[in-house]
Amino acid sequence: LFQIDFEPLGKRGQCTSEMSLLDCARQTGIGINSVCGGIGDCQSCKIQIIDGTSSPPTESELKAFSEREIRDGWRLACQSYPTSACKLNIPPESMTTMQRMQTEGIQTKISPDPAVKLFPVNLSSPSMNDQLADADRVIHYLDTSYSIKDALVDIDVLRQLSRHLRAMDWRCKVAIRSNEIIGIIPQTSSRVGLAIDIGSTKIAGYLVNLDDGNTLCSKGIVNPQVSYGEDIISRIQLAMKSVTEAVMLRQLVLDAINGLAADLCQDINIKPWEIIDAAIVGNTVMHHLFLGLPVGQLANAPFIPAISKALDIKARHNGLNLAPGAYIHILPNIAGFIGSDHTAVLLTLTDTIARGTTLILDIGTNTEVSLINDSQISCVSCASGPAFEGGHIKHGMRAAEGAIERLKITDVSVKYQTIGSIPPIGICGSGLLDAVAQLYCGQVIDAGGKMQKNHPRVRVSNNQLEFILVTEDERDGKPAITITQKDVREVQLAKGAIRAGIQVLLENNRINEGKLDQVIIAGAFGTYLDINSAIMIGMIPSLPSGHYSQVGNAAGAGAKIALASIAKRKEAQAIASRTRYIELGSYTGFNELFINSTYLGSSPEQYKTRRL
Amino acid sequence: LFQIDFEPLGKRGQCTSEMSLLDCARQTGIGINSVCGGIGDCQSCKIQIIDGTSSPPTESELKAFSEREIRDGWRLACQSYPTSACKLNIPPESMTTMQRMQTEGIQTKISPDPAVKLFPVNLSSPSMNDQLADADRVIHYLDTSYSIKDALVDIDVLRQLSRHLRAMDWRCKVAIRSNEIIGIIPQTSSRVGLAIDIGSTKIAGYLVNLDDGNTLCSKGIVNPQVSYGEDIISRIQLAMKSVTEAVMLRQLVLDAINGLAADLCQDINIKPWEIIDAAIVGNTVMHHLFLGLPVGQLANAPFIPAISKALDIKARHNGLNLAPGAYIHILPNIAGFIGSDHTAVLLTLTDTIARGTTLILDIGTNTEVSLINDSQISCVSCASGPAFEGGHIKHGMRAAEGAIERLKITDVSVKYQTIGSIPPIGICGSGLLDAVAQLYCGQVIDAGGKMQKNHPRVRVSNNQLEFILVTEDERDGKPAITITQKDVREVQLAKGAIRAGIQVLLENNRINEGKLDQVIIAGAFGTYLDINSAIMIGMIPSLPSGHYSQVGNAAGAGAKIALASIAKRKEAQAIASRTRYIELGSYTGFNELFINSTYLGSSPEQYKTRRL
Repeated sequence: LFQIDFEPLGKRGQCTSEMSLLDCARQTGIGINSVCGGIGDCQSCKIQIIDGTSSPPTESELKAFSEREIRDGWRLACQSYPTSACKLNIPPESMTTMQRMQTEGIQTKISPDPAVKLFPVNLSSPSMNDQLADADRVIHYLDTSYSIKDALVDIDVLRQLSRHLRAMDWRCKVAIRSNEIIGIIPQTSSRVGLAIDIGSTKIAGYLVNLDDGNTLCSKGIVNPQVSYGEDIISRIQLAMKSVTEAVMLRQLVLDAINGLAADLCQDINIKPWEIIDAAIVGNTVMHHLFLGLPVGQLANAPFIPAISKALDIKARHNGLNLAPGAYIHILPNIAGFIGSDHTAVLLTLTDTIARGTTLILDIGTNTEVSLINDSQISCVSCASGPAFEGGHIKHGMRAAEGAIERLKITDVSVKYQTIGSIPPIGICGSGLLDAVAQLYCGQVIDAGGKMQKNHPRVRVSNNQLEFILVTEDERDGKPAITITQKDVREVQLAKGAIRAGIQVLLENNRINEGKLDQVIIAGAFGTYLDINSAIMIGMIPSLPSGHYSQVGNAAGAGAKIALASIAKRKEAQAIASRTRYIELGSYTGFNELFINSTYLGSSPEQYKTRRL
Repeated sequence: LFQIDFEPLGKRGQCTSEMSLLDCARQTGIGINSVCGGIGDCQSCKIQIIDGTSSPPTESELKAFSEREIRDGWRLACQSYPTSACKLNIPPESMTTMQRMQTEGIQTKISPDPAVKLFPVNLSSPSMNDQLADADRVIHYLDTSYSIKDALVDIDVLRQLSRHLRAMDWRCKVAIRSNEIIGIIPQTSSRVGLAIDIGSTKIAGYLVNLDDGNTLCSKGIVNPQVSYGEDIISRIQLAMKSVTEAVMLRQLVLDAINGLAADLCQDINIKPWEIIDAAIVGNTVMHHLFLGLPVGQLANAPFIPAISKALDIKARHNGLNLAPGAYIHILPNIAGFIGSDHTAVLLTLTDTIARGTTLILDIGTNTEVSLINDSQISCVSCASGPAFEGGHIKHGMRAAEGAIERLKITDVSVKYQTIGSIPPIGICGSGLLDAVAQLYCGQVIDAGGKMQKNHPRVRVSNNQLEFILVTEDERDGKPAITITQKDVREVQLAKGAIRAGIQVLLENNRINEGKLDQVIIAGAFGTYLDINSAIMIGMIPSLPSGHYSQVGNAAGAGAKIALASIAKRKEAQAIASRTRYIELGSYTGFNELFINSTYLGSSPEQYKTRRL
């Protein structure tokens, strides 16, 4: 066993020579990025060995680093096995726990109509002349005082009932869902529910006052599954490897949600067992992993979910610690790669700002695009890849402190802004989008994405062209931050996938982009991206900026709406059921459309489909 | 660690010097009787050390055995700690696993109306042009083919659904309860349900064809909790000692029921996951321990159950392995010491033979007595003690092979019959009842129970009189089988408790025993007892024998009725709700009535209550 010190965290772990430094970090509870799931491909787990020795650099590492970087101890954590005790430097861009955790989205006004109601109960205590059983006593009281007939009792509530009634001196509040007693709480407790949005990258949690629909507090955390592969495909592959891995992935999320709920409860000084209801959304893979459903049939054609319909199950039967008999409502999925998070987005937006012919985008590794046209909804799922989350980009990182989030290129100078206004350590999605738009605008790259080598900031490194955003000098000797030819290609693939999806929807609905009344962009990246840059490269249609809205985490907002209202849950199911999913994989002419869409430029003619 | 050999079983265990031989037997999985729970009081754990040494005999052991027996190695397993490796002889009367396991009772004709229905389903398999989710596909089929709207799916069924549908090539039977899919079974499966009667001593299990209500197979096993105390009070005390002990007691019963269900399934060549429904009865303590409910408030005045009403919970949420989403229906209790087993008896009997003014007895350690009068039901619970199950009786044993079950005393000779017609090794309840009746009839004991010392078969042993039933010679030198003065007292206490309970019911209903149209005796002991003997000593009213019926395990029969019919479940709840429980502990004049009832004799005048 070698002792491994992780700096600047000051954490210490144990590592065998059979374990990679990435495995050691995971085991020590340190979140290191791993987009590719640990196969040396994505270069997101960069670390520096500042003391100690390890296995010789692999081919992947020689590709990832310059000779000098290798000499300086830079390695990929997934490729490196210690041969002695080591001290490591984990740069911020490799850590999962530093990113901006957006939880807030569009504000919605909810008319509360929650699934669970609270009833104050004041019982007489039993005696030799009144030997009514404890639960029967509560049920009888509910009948005579509130005309609730034949209430049922959850078995776990029942197991605690005799003790609780006596401890609370026969006075309490009874939480009832439909006809079932799901919790016994103090008379001072109020109605609190939990809404959760399980993203591939982050998990957002909200406590909601179910009496008025107001958000009491919210928090975002990293989805701990990120350490086992940043994209959904690596997680599916891991889950399919063995039951142990699937159970482990699931348990990571359950533990994270339980921890998040406990943290939120602490904020408002209640206990998790006072949470009487919950609503959960997530993309289909997150949904399946969370519920312990198999993902094999989801990963292979014809891509079938185990279930799309909404589910109501007991929280404890899915490993969540809320009120003993509390349920969780899981919103319906729409298709194999259109999850309940998108249903929640549609619920939120149809409930608020969506009017007329509306295009809705939720941009991520998979980008869901929906088109509301004549009150018909159709949607597609675009494989836009991890580029906008920093994946597969040489100096890419997520939207954490030190990421370049905005930039402007004028002649030979580059102006940029970083998150937290600290010295730059990488570039996040919105910065990357700006960079490609600026390079295209300044003709450093052409419509095909080819980089011109004669620009003063363009150099050759590792056999490819790259544009220097921040020089080595500006970084006090640290490696320059650049945009490579390959990075530009990644952006082209991403924007091409999204634009092709939009075009399929327009074509299938037989409308022109000019007919769009509005375009709503949801999600964290969507909040921060520059609409003009996105239009300039042709990721989104060229419409007046007044047509665009950026609404933040609309999925979380939808979870809160469904939490607070059973009518809205029904509406969400109705939305999911009537949304028509168009499978791009079998859409005639899609490949040609996609290739056309990878070209940069904002002219509508370029993207106009052939059939309109 | 000492090695302990248990003969004639040929089992071997390990014992520390800190463990009693009883603990060692339990740990080795050998069922040794322990009526008192291991405090040296009941003498039911007699064993013989045939090789090896152990701790010196305790006071309890010196009281239990003659000097010669002690010399021969006879000990109480709960009092004896090994000081070397030992070889033990476990006599049959000390073993829990040898008793007669009656499962059959009164035959009932059921009109099946089960809670779960089966629907054959033939699905088209999904494709790129038909990407409906797996569960949604089943739900859609149920709607279009059977007009079942919006079926729900149990989460554990859902977790297996995708795999099962593919393995069964999209053809299966769907088990539905109310609106919920609780199992996916092969198209060849038929509807099978499980009925269970959890007795303090034994557990009876039945598989029932839910299409016609017929019993497919049945089996009785020892309740493994017996090793931790034969009577209910010792189990309550153990459960209250710590959570660990309560969990252990519960797990013993759950494991036993799962094992029993698996055995029954093997008999008819199905798997436990093809069992789609279950109904369970038991006395209130068994009911609470089975469900993991607290027993503290049940054990102390005012003796309040956690719940009396019927419960429907998922089998798996109570640790039973049936169809993944199957429910168990637990019949309602009536009061703290009138459990759902008695509700089941009343359900069975009101459904079959009970007509007119009827007295119903279910004789056991607690004897439940109900009186149906003018279609009103009232009931009492009598603390009749373990005498009729062989407890606290010098040569007492349960109704296992070798037990004297019938006997006749003429002058100086004793004729007897044993279970299995093998040489006698002890006396069970029905034999004991006969013996006391015969001794009273032959004036060897008087109405007060006092034994006459001048009878040739009466001798003094350990400072008390005892009547020799089987001599040492007749047993080839083994100790004589006797009825002691104390044994007679135990029978008087038992019969006194039962008779006093009967008299309270008659008095409270303001009727005379002559008004009874019939008396029905349920339960295993009740099946085998001799009515004339019971009348002779005054345990039951002196009525013409045509008034009496002995119906066997009516509790198990009631569980089967409730299993096969939801209408009958409602009827059981109605019976439990309208049955009036009379608490003997607070009944004015009960003590005097009880003392009067301990006297032997059949004259109605003797038991007539003072107020009629």
